[in-house]
Amino acid sequence: MGIDPGVANTGFGVVRVAGGRITAVDGGVIEAPGEAPMETRLARIHAELETLISWHEPAAVALEDLYFGKNVRSATAVGQARGVAMLAAAQRQIPCFDYTPQAVKMAVCGTGSAAKRQVQQMVGTLLGLAHAPDSDHTADALAVAICHAGHAHTAAAQRIAEPSAVAAT
Amino acid sequence: MGIDPGVANTGFGVVRVAGGRITAVDGGVIEAPGEAPMETRLARIHAELETLISWHEPAAVALEDLYFGKNVRSATAVGQARGVAMLAAAQRQIPCFDYTPQAVKMAVCGTGSAAKRQVQQMVGTLLGLAHAPDSDHTADALAVAICHAGHAHTAAAQRIAEPSAVAAT
Repeated sequence: MGIDPGVANTGFGVVRVAGGRITAVDGGVIEAPGEAPMETRLARIHAELETLISWHEPAAVALEDLYFGKNVRSATAVGQARGVAMLAAAQRQIPCFDYTPQAVKMAVCGTGSAAKRQVQQMVGTLLGLAHAPDSDHTADALAVAICHAGHAHTAAAQRIAEPSAVAAT
Repeated sequence: MGIDPGVANTGFGVVRVAGGRITAVDGGVIEAPGEAPMETRLARIHAELETLISWHEPAAVALEDLYFGKNVRSATAVGQARGVAMLAAAQRQIPCFDYTPQAVKMAVCGTGSAAKRQVQQMVGTLLGLAHAPDSDHTADALAVAICHAGHAHTAAAQRIAEPSAVAAT
């Protein structure tokens, strides 16, 4: 499950990897209206993610690292949304993984400098959707889920290839 | 209740205002060990604050605004801790309030540019403690609680003085 946290719009996307194929299971945006106090908005994000996580029971939650291109004020705000998203995962014992925007773009588009629109298109193509996700929050969440699926797959492949290394850890 | 959120150390302080006097009810530090994954640390902070909030049933939760003197990376990390702290309050329908470090220092020391040690000393004096709090996280949490108590008191006083203004809002 990928999450693109934000205090106004939190994107989520759930993908399934089976038989070397990746498919979309769910995706959408949790909206937290700006007129409500911040703590109420965070409670809404947390409650919605809690429901989605208990429904889908993902093996992992992947988030985009946001240390880039933000100012301190917006980093704090997004940090708050990230905090409640990670909490929702931790309360179900689901591990969280961080990926840089570059890694996500690389995984989805094959280049770390892809444009937002390109990410949306490629997410649609990779997941075999009839059309690209309308919301870029949903697309970003699906993209980070795809990115993690690729990395998890690589890690698993390495583990199988190096049984002695696994036994040692 | 004042909270000084941090991913490693979250300070908390509970004060009671009665008969024009302010006293300390509780205070301490929630430690979240650095070797655990971030989501586990956030879950610990949230669980401990949940217990403290249900125990003390504070009328409000006050937090220090942290947009100052932070870089984007640390703002994100502290934002995550703030997020789970605000969530713990919202889940009990307790409103959250933000104060700038300057406002907190002004409320406690009478000057917005007081040193950390001075804040610690004045918190001890104002609350009639035998000695200043050892931890500056506890002191900061108690300081923001004192700051809110002063502001809440002023707001209440204004409301009593201007009944027509209240009726109009």
